[in-house]
Amino acid sequence: MRKIIFPVFCFCVISIQAQTINPKIQEFINSKQTVLLNQFIEFLRIPNVLGDSINMERNASFIQLMLKQQSVESKLLRSNKPGSAPVVYGEVMTPGASTTIIFYAHYDGQPVNPAKWSEGLHPFTPKLLSDRHDKGGMPVAIPTTNKLWDPEWRIYARGASDDKAGVFAILAAYEVLRELKLKPNINIKFFFEGEEEAGSINLGQILEENKKLLDADLWLICDGPSHFSGKKQILFGVRGDANIDLKVYASKRPLHSGNYGNWAPNPAMRLAQLLSSMKDKDGMVTIKGFYDDVIPLTTVEKTAIFKIPEFETILRKDLLMINPDGAGRPFMELLNLPTLNINGIQSANIGNLSANIIPTEAEAALDLRLVKGNDVERQINKVIAHVKSLGYHVIDHEPTDEERTNFPLIAKISKRSHGYNAQRTPMDLPVAQRVITAVNTTINYELIQVPSLGGSLPLYLFEQILNTKPITLPIVNFDNNQHAENENVKIGFLLKGIETMAAIMLMK
Amino acid sequence: MRKIIFPVFCFCVISIQAQTINPKIQEFINSKQTVLLNQFIEFLRIPNVLGDSINMERNASFIQLMLKQQSVESKLLRSNKPGSAPVVYGEVMTPGASTTIIFYAHYDGQPVNPAKWSEGLHPFTPKLLSDRHDKGGMPVAIPTTNKLWDPEWRIYARGASDDKAGVFAILAAYEVLRELKLKPNINIKFFFEGEEEAGSINLGQILEENKKLLDADLWLICDGPSHFSGKKQILFGVRGDANIDLKVYASKRPLHSGNYGNWAPNPAMRLAQLLSSMKDKDGMVTIKGFYDDVIPLTTVEKTAIFKIPEFETILRKDLLMINPDGAGRPFMELLNLPTLNINGIQSANIGNLSANIIPTEAEAALDLRLVKGNDVERQINKVIAHVKSLGYHVIDHEPTDEERTNFPLIAKISKRSHGYNAQRTPMDLPVAQRVITAVNTTINYELIQVPSLGGSLPLYLFEQILNTKPITLPIVNFDNNQHAENENVKIGFLLKGIETMAAIMLMK
Repeated sequence: MRKIIFPVFCFCVISIQAQTINPKIQEFINSKQTVLLNQFIEFLRIPNVLGDSINMERNASFIQLMLKQQSVESKLLRSNKPGSAPVVYGEVMTPGASTTIIFYAHYDGQPVNPAKWSEGLHPFTPKLLSDRHDKGGMPVAIPTTNKLWDPEWRIYARGASDDKAGVFAILAAYEVLRELKLKPNINIKFFFEGEEEAGSINLGQILEENKKLLDADLWLICDGPSHFSGKKQILFGVRGDANIDLKVYASKRPLHSGNYGNWAPNPAMRLAQLLSSMKDKDGMVTIKGFYDDVIPLTTVEKTAIFKIPEFETILRKDLLMINPDGAGRPFMELLNLPTLNINGIQSANIGNLSANIIPTEAEAALDLRLVKGNDVERQINKVIAHVKSLGYHVIDHEPTDEERTNFPLIAKISKRSHGYNAQRTPMDLPVAQRVITAVNTTINYELIQVPSLGGSLPLYLFEQILNTKPITLPIVNFDNNQHAENENVKIGFLLKGIETMAAIMLMK
Repeated sequence: MRKIIFPVFCFCVISIQAQTINPKIQEFINSKQTVLLNQFIEFLRIPNVLGDSINMERNASFIQLMLKQQSVESKLLRSNKPGSAPVVYGEVMTPGASTTIIFYAHYDGQPVNPAKWSEGLHPFTPKLLSDRHDKGGMPVAIPTTNKLWDPEWRIYARGASDDKAGVFAILAAYEVLRELKLKPNINIKFFFEGEEEAGSINLGQILEENKKLLDADLWLICDGPSHFSGKKQILFGVRGDANIDLKVYASKRPLHSGNYGNWAPNPAMRLAQLLSSMKDKDGMVTIKGFYDDVIPLTTVEKTAIFKIPEFETILRKDLLMINPDGAGRPFMELLNLPTLNINGIQSANIGNLSANIIPTEAEAALDLRLVKGNDVERQINKVIAHVKSLGYHVIDHEPTDEERTNFPLIAKISKRSHGYNAQRTPMDLPVAQRVITAVNTTINYELIQVPSLGGSLPLYLFEQILNTKPITLPIVNFDNNQHAENENVKIGFLLKGIETMAAIMLMK
């Protein structure tokens, strides 16, 4: 009996809390924001590109220190791969709590090319701007005394959004609850990964080795951007991802474009021909069987998509883009299809650095997003089969002289990352519905529910190894330039994120 | 009468000289090669990339000093463009001589990217290697005492072949004649340009302003590579050249490839589609009218081509290339057609620097080689018309927000260089025939005669402004990586070049 009554009782408490506690939390966050945000900025000063082991360890130590300040003992979970970045793990067990949620975020960031960042901005020297950089945002001195920060201000740095914002919002939410002496109603487990942008290559091993420690009812993934409309969204799935490098070759030596031009093949032209054979003019992939194994969306998922507010108009205006790809299909439908995207392409040099040569090789970095039904290896093999069908000898290494002599067309295709498959959690999962209820208490509209994010996270691992479902709750502004230069986060979104995480910690 | 008898007399003298003087010259060059080649290496140490005005002036001073040491007064001919590199001009008038030849070479080099040079090599720190770098060549200490240098050794540096080798061979030839007290039989004018690799943008102005000074019977251009067979060649023409940059755009901001993938167009894919629409699989240009205005070769020219030794076999083996472009047409025929070549291509980053983004723009550096009948503007306009025919709005500037909003497809096409047309000197020009006779005295085979070089030099200017015909006599090895990384010159070719220039100075 008690077990039945208890949840009903709790639900009432949440409702009351939603009306009584949130203003208090909001008020407290406001009163403490200079301290909190300066802490965040210090966090952003620590470079977080994988491979820079010293700094990755510094990031982990920083997080451990933040947890320690809240009396949370933490430990580092490490894979056996030398030089890999550790997971920072901590937990707060609540006596009597029957629900355990693992709060996940990652502290590593995408590789940076500081030269690409706009003047005055640098990935690891955080700057505060009054507005978006390309919309006339001007530098603002970082406040050091207690005052209200304009919610429109943005902090520019690698990881500002993706995903140190997630790490920070979770840690700050717990700090706020403690200072307000609000006891969580669930068991909280903190799990901060350091290798997400490298495809979470060691996450599987860490989950395998810590199954008991990671026992939970739900993984709450705090990553990705808010909805384009500016509203909060919850996501029940992610696309998978695989990265491959495609490189083609011509002459073994660079050649004078006059003395050999018309006779010596051009690798950049070969690559252009190869790539353009992979998509039609609408951006739909023409590789054989590319869409064949896609599992269609369920009725529930289709209905959810239908309820998502229209935002393409805003998006087109924001990006100054008047002809999207996709042959007229709706945005959300396109996010539920696999992709083939060129991340970058290079052959010799351009502009003032270019010379009148025929280059020796040309390379493209490709990423393949996968949806439910796709498989990493199968998807890559479709690309390889396509390249082969155009007469290429496909190898996974630099061609030997013998190969150059034996094969007229050579392409090297190599995996840049491990890659992983898509994941989708059923939208009617009860614990997920409770999270939705909690988040709805912090906003004056209905939380947007999305069957799958366009982006990728290694969520299949939680399902596969731990048999636990994940859901994703992003907090940052969508126009944050994550993964590129000039990454930024809007102050208003970041602070709201703290409030959101606090509400989930208080949910019953 | 005397006038008629005189040339006949001279011709006899040349024949005698050919048998008697050449061994003496050869012997003298051998005995002095350590001094000469160290002088050349010092010359190569001076960076020669246009834009680096201080070093360009240092190059000019170095040449002036070398002329002064041979008692040749020189002066700098300058355009009125600030920061432009001067021409070094000098002359040796021979009493009684009825023929004046201007010896041309250029001291500037193509832009360099030191990172692309192989380990141990650097564009402006000349290194001596025992063989070609990629064929196991090992470092050799630069001899400082008098000894014979192995003719197979190579000096690696920017300009080693293109075209400080030309400047040096001309200067050294005159030095050798003076030291041997051999009086030239022609008037010699030295003309060393410093802006050839930038398309000789100011040469026209300098020629215009110095018409009287530059009165001559022939321009002898010492530039370009020897024939692929290793034999010496003389060239009666050059292709023209135009460089354009082609840039396409997509979203104004870089986008996360997961969150926008399938919807946001990819500029690298657009560029790939554009470029691949310009050539067929055999490398023949498919742009409308691209070959229409080509003036066919004359019978004399066709015959000359027919006599050129077969070398494609060597070339294919050397370059490890088994499928040349050109739909089976012979190499020399392809060199007499216009080209469209990709010098370089770039969008965002590749390999470990790549990120999971959709880039904002993609750019290609193109060069168009022109043949007799083509015109720079007309050729570029064909490319522009082609891009337009594919639905692109073509502009010559970065797109404004308004343009991005009004046009679904935008391409920026801009000229990277001034560009110039092709030039061809008639193969039976008498003074050219006399040069051939002189050169033939230094070799034990017949000088190869080529109607047109595949490469480009601004030779049309001499014809158009001065009404003087040019011919080109290269001296360096063909596998010299000119215009690219690891540029080099073979010692044997360089020393032979001095002998060749000396023979021409002694011709009657």
